[in-house]
Amino acid sequence: MNTPMLDQFEQHTAAFQQVILDKQTEIEAWFRAKWHQHTPPFYGSVDIRNAGYKMSSIDMNLFPGGFNNLNSDFLATAVIAAQDAVERACPTAKSILLVPENHTRNTFYLQNVYALSKILEAAGFEVRIGSLNPEITEATAFTTALDNELVLEPLTRVGERLQLADGFNPCLVLLNNDLSAGVPELLQGLDQVVLPPLKGGWTTRRKTQHFAAYDQVAAEFAQVIGIDEWDINPYFEQASGINFHEREGEDQLAEVVQRLLDKIQAKYDEKGIQDTPFVIVKADAGTYGMGVMSVKSADEVRKLNRKNRNKMAVIKEGLEVSEVIVQEGIYTYEKVGEAVSEPVVYMMDRFVIGGFYRVNEARGIDENLNATGMRFIPMDQEIPYQSEDADKRRYAQWNTLGVADRESPANCEDNRLYVYGVMARLSLLAAAIELE
Amino acid sequence: MNTPMLDQFEQHTAAFQQVILDKQTEIEAWFRAKWHQHTPPFYGSVDIRNAGYKMSSIDMNLFPGGFNNLNSDFLATAVIAAQDAVERACPTAKSILLVPENHTRNTFYLQNVYALSKILEAAGFEVRIGSLNPEITEATAFTTALDNELVLEPLTRVGERLQLADGFNPCLVLLNNDLSAGVPELLQGLDQVVLPPLKGGWTTRRKTQHFAAYDQVAAEFAQVIGIDEWDINPYFEQASGINFHEREGEDQLAEVVQRLLDKIQAKYDEKGIQDTPFVIVKADAGTYGMGVMSVKSADEVRKLNRKNRNKMAVIKEGLEVSEVIVQEGIYTYEKVGEAVSEPVVYMMDRFVIGGFYRVNEARGIDENLNATGMRFIPMDQEIPYQSEDADKRRYAQWNTLGVADRESPANCEDNRLYVYGVMARLSLLAAAIELE
Repeated sequence: MNTPMLDQFEQHTAAFQQVILDKQTEIEAWFRAKWHQHTPPFYGSVDIRNAGYKMSSIDMNLFPGGFNNLNSDFLATAVIAAQDAVERACPTAKSILLVPENHTRNTFYLQNVYALSKILEAAGFEVRIGSLNPEITEATAFTTALDNELVLEPLTRVGERLQLADGFNPCLVLLNNDLSAGVPELLQGLDQVVLPPLKGGWTTRRKTQHFAAYDQVAAEFAQVIGIDEWDINPYFEQASGINFHEREGEDQLAEVVQRLLDKIQAKYDEKGIQDTPFVIVKADAGTYGMGVMSVKSADEVRKLNRKNRNKMAVIKEGLEVSEVIVQEGIYTYEKVGEAVSEPVVYMMDRFVIGGFYRVNEARGIDENLNATGMRFIPMDQEIPYQSEDADKRRYAQWNTLGVADRESPANCEDNRLYVYGVMARLSLLAAAIELE
Repeated sequence: MNTPMLDQFEQHTAAFQQVILDKQTEIEAWFRAKWHQHTPPFYGSVDIRNAGYKMSSIDMNLFPGGFNNLNSDFLATAVIAAQDAVERACPTAKSILLVPENHTRNTFYLQNVYALSKILEAAGFEVRIGSLNPEITEATAFTTALDNELVLEPLTRVGERLQLADGFNPCLVLLNNDLSAGVPELLQGLDQVVLPPLKGGWTTRRKTQHFAAYDQVAAEFAQVIGIDEWDINPYFEQASGINFHEREGEDQLAEVVQRLLDKIQAKYDEKGIQDTPFVIVKADAGTYGMGVMSVKSADEVRKLNRKNRNKMAVIKEGLEVSEVIVQEGIYTYEKVGEAVSEPVVYMMDRFVIGGFYRVNEARGIDENLNATGMRFIPMDQEIPYQSEDADKRRYAQWNTLGVADRESPANCEDNRLYVYGVMARLSLLAAAIELE
């Protein structure tokens, strides 16, 4: 990217941030009114892309990992948010049963579970961790990436209660497991509060449902602040009946891709944008950055080589992909140092509690940056890593929580992160509607 | 203070902090239950004294100044708390009319008003400042101690609404004026929400009412965590019918002082405490650290010289003192550097949003440290000061918000401040009950 384009990016972003800051009072009042109508998810994280002329959340994770990547200076804020989140779920809760993913060998994921449990403990709840992993047959201590100890205990079911061996069965079961492998019988029909709800898991959830809800949210928000909805909302369509292995549904997918590329080009023409349109094809029930490709022409879909077809065909837990979301790609001109980056924002209840820039030195401005999991390495910290590509994966932790300051320049770091927080909360609101 | 005593202080404090940390889950659940029964005040600050063997809030300010003294690193937390506070008061509020004290020449106080309005603005509310000061006859810009601009506008009354010249009359009127001079007619019978409520002003409020409510709170809390209530609750009594100028009521006051000193000595004997009992005599409706004296014998009350009688007789706004609270004194062994200090904790809604140590190098461990107003000088910052004694007044800003960490030593800074936060919230809860 040359300097004039970067300048343009900064100018566009500054202009957009000025609009948001000018309307901050209206925006916050609007959010407050919305949270009276819709129950915020317990927690969530979103990926944001910012091209300057357009900015949006492009993915919303209802079972966020990576709490270990958040700046611990903002722990106090997370603790307040956690209190609101738990109290909303279960006003009398004293304890929480946390159910994580099964992969016990990913010590970075364990670090995330540790960080999450620390937030909840600091908020004044007893937290114990019940694992669905059949290999956990007794309370077992694991060592996290940063050398903390995390005890996983086997889950049992007694009547309609999920509990641990000693009968621990609090009113709140908090999932940090996205149910990609289906909803285990253990979790079905519980009379405890299960959050996020089972239907939020990838067994049933579809990205297209999220973005259908986001359409409503973005349209209304755009009206509130007087902008073109497109500025904050990427086009998308679903394509189904696909079998990448067998090359079934390729033509239909190519048609969808072409239709979207044409729509984007028309909008680029209208706005005088010089970029080349691209779309992202993603498994509609996919997560962990798996089953994602960036496409600039319909032909690319028809000419997928075996390697890329395999990559698209199977996602987390070995599930076959038959439905995809084709989503307008948003260039990311946000940079950390010389590397392409995208902001990731974490929320609990209605509140932003942290974030970081996901940085991938090996990737381009039109690519998925969430390439192989959650093994981020903070830029200023040495952490042992497990896989060879981990050394290419970096994140830059946020040093502020994005408190809006109308007296500072619109484009200062605090205001930039405030605006990313607004974008993130739009997606959070869409998730609330999606889960109703 | 010699080293063995300091060691003893640290040991006592660590032991008490361990009790609090061990019961953290119960404590937080108890607070949550209490906040379902009682509405938290909009905001408040408390002064805490810590003798190691005993620790308590000894004063609760419902109209806190000094927001400018809080660590701006925790602004994000204050912003969340402010959202809860305003929403609780007025769910649809978009704007706030802030009514400060009248003293426009105290630029440090103006800095406080500026800091408070920045928190509320960052929370997404429009904030305008309406002054009761008759000298403010049109919108007037003032310069704060740190060179920010603050515009004060004259208040008017239209029907049952308090408003500014252009008709600005939001549903929430937020007082940062403690009404020591009485409740102005302008504020009476408004159909807007006025917070803190008028009865929380010093026209009607009495410290003894607060500590009567605190008695209930402390007794219940002591039971929850299994300690002697005395460990967190200073004895007190009211004495009335006093005229310091005319030396009326002296004997009665001396009797109260003697009775309390005897009670404290009995408790010290029971606990094996070597300190000399003392009491604090304070105007029951006093504030700003005015009308306060430290007394170790009943004779001291009978032998007050003219200067000290004058000091006790008249408080803020020139009001005569006829009622006092005689409160068990708690030694403060908390030190910042070599200076005696007491923790001051700020809260908004249910949450601790910051604090500092009030340090006074010129004062002793049994004296009131709030000696002449709100002109604190941060230890690491040069601020122009206005009065000659200001150079003796220092505060040390908190660098953490006191997030409890059960894996760290009980006596680490975070846990120490968490415990001070618990003490502060007990007083906040008492204020909630007091205001019912």
